Amino acid sequence: MRVGLDIGGTKIDAVVVDGSGAPVHRLRLPTGFGPDAVLTNAATAVASLADRSGVAVEAFESVGVGIPGLVDGTTGRVRHAVNIGFDDVAVGPTLSARLGVPVRVENDVNAAALGAYLAMSLSGSVGYLNLGTGLAAGLVVDGELWRGSRGVSGEIGHVPVDPGGELCPCGQRGCLETVAAGAAVSRHWPTEGAYPAVALFAAADAGDPEAVRVRADLAAGVAAAVRLLVLTTDVDSVVIGGGLSNLGRPLLDDVAAVLDRWAAGSPFLASLELSSRIELLPPGFPVAAVGAATVGARGSAATTVAAV
Amino acid sequence: MRVGLDIGGTKIDAVVVDGSGAPVHRLRLPTGFGPDAVLTNAATAVASLADRSGVAVEAFESVGVGIPGLVDGTTGRVRHAVNIGFDDVAVGPTLSARLGVPVRVENDVNAAALGAYLAMSLSGSVGYLNLGTGLAAGLVVDGELWRGSRGVSGEIGHVPVDPGGELCPCGQRGCLETVAAGAAVSRHWPTEGAYPAVALFAAADAGDPEAVRVRADLAAGVAAAVRLLVLTTDVDSVVIGGGLSNLGRPLLDDVAAVLDRWAAGSPFLASLELSSRIELLPPGFPVAAVGAATVGARGSAATTVAAV
Repeated sequence: MRVGLDIGGTKIDAVVVDGSGAPVHRLRLPTGFGPDAVLTNAATAVASLADRSGVAVEAFESVGVGIPGLVDGTTGRVRHAVNIGFDDVAVGPTLSARLGVPVRVENDVNAAALGAYLAMSLSGSVGYLNLGTGLAAGLVVDGELWRGSRGVSGEIGHVPVDPGGELCPCGQRGCLETVAAGAAVSRHWPTEGAYPAVALFAAADAGDPEAVRVRADLAAGVAAAVRLLVLTTDVDSVVIGGGLSNLGRPLLDDVAAVLDRWAAGSPFLASLELSSRIELLPPGFPVAAVGAATVGARGSAATTVAAV
Repeated sequence: MRVGLDIGGTKIDAVVVDGSGAPVHRLRLPTGFGPDAVLTNAATAVASLADRSGVAVEAFESVGVGIPGLVDGTTGRVRHAVNIGFDDVAVGPTLSARLGVPVRVENDVNAAALGAYLAMSLSGSVGYLNLGTGLAAGLVVDGELWRGSRGVSGEIGHVPVDPGGELCPCGQRGCLETVAAGAAVSRHWPTEGAYPAVALFAAADAGDPEAVRVRADLAAGVAAAVRLLVLTTDVDSVVIGGGLSNLGRPLLDDVAAVLDRWAAGSPFLASLELSSRIELLPPGFPVAAVGAATVGARGSAATTVAAV
């Protein structure tokens, strides 16, 4: 049995997977903020899963952790995890020492990309486009993550696409993330409810002109992300996941319509068949946690060794 | 012995390579325009190389062809080779039938990427950024081309980066290619001489304010291409080749300076160490032709079979 943790900005999604990689137990708890709180909560999640499974923590063969930040998979070190208050933390070694189990760390979007690829039984090359608080992608080729030289592949949210765009927290201006992610929607369609994107789509459906405009901007931003992924890597398909993907078919249709409109003006783009490559992640499945568990299972000689 | 042909917009660069992949003969002749002329000139190039090598054409084990366009490596078919007047031509089968030698076809920038990777003894992952008439990239990972699902990977010249930019022949507006390629330089710095980019750099060095501006725009455009490649694929290094790379160190330094300036305003970008990843292709080596020869040598079951 193996554990996968998806450490998000708000909650930790934790699963136990069986030998086939299928989740058999699942729980959630708040992430907390800062290394002490987050790592304690992560360890608590693993202990709770052990209870639920009727085993000691040490019985787990591995723990895989997906976390938002720049991850060095070899050392288990995480940098720039701004959302959870980390700057440079040895997540792998620390958790491993606390649990007595090998721990492997992965960027959360990479973990979700791998989980989605496996859960959806995909083949060939896939770009997993995560529309969460921010925007990032994970690349999977023939069942393996394409992490890049420093595990930074897929950070397309910080590709500027408009010199006249908004200032991004990363320091640049007009980044894709400033138009095509959850935080962008919240900024452009502030709402009292919990789901600004849902409120946005409802208001646009009801004919509010500003909502129509903001919704169109979102679709164009997501379409630009798809176009960028395909023009650069020519992945067979682009799977759209993350919080905004819960908007479902209306979002997918919006994005496909933009891609088709662009294709109508460019035979070159038309030949790439962009709109035919996109699909939604089926909702509900814990792709990031299961992907993290898979990363844990695939641990190499570089896996942080359990300190017993 | 194997042949590699780099079919460019103006000339065909043709080499014979020995068993180690090193070029032993080389010649150039005009490309011509349209399928009949181009394929005839290509066949002539191979025949001339055979003469020079003292063998019959059929003695060559394979011919690899790099050509600017959308290439289907399985069928040897080339579409949208606008520069040389092709729309949809079965280059592989036609040449193979004419020569009696297996012929394999590859996109020219992909061929150059592979040739550069081998010639420079690179390892890991490399983005080869070709600054020719247009702008495109080739991706090589652990010695293998990453072509993508339809051989379109690396077409980053047609990623729009400025909604207010110039109309691109592809139908979109503000494409990277409209700022960071040879045709863009010719447009923005028209000159009577043969090398607008050289004239541009000289005028900028002499203090011409417009030249300084155009030169700065070029550097920023190339830097944007580097940033896009790394943020998306996180390649270990970016090798800059193609006609504009003959500007040499001054271009590289310009681009590095832009990347460093951007890094100074963004800790996130700074962590990616963009300026340390770029290098120039050493001039003179026939990377595209040698890369094409390598593609020919690696022919699989999909290689167009010689019609004898």
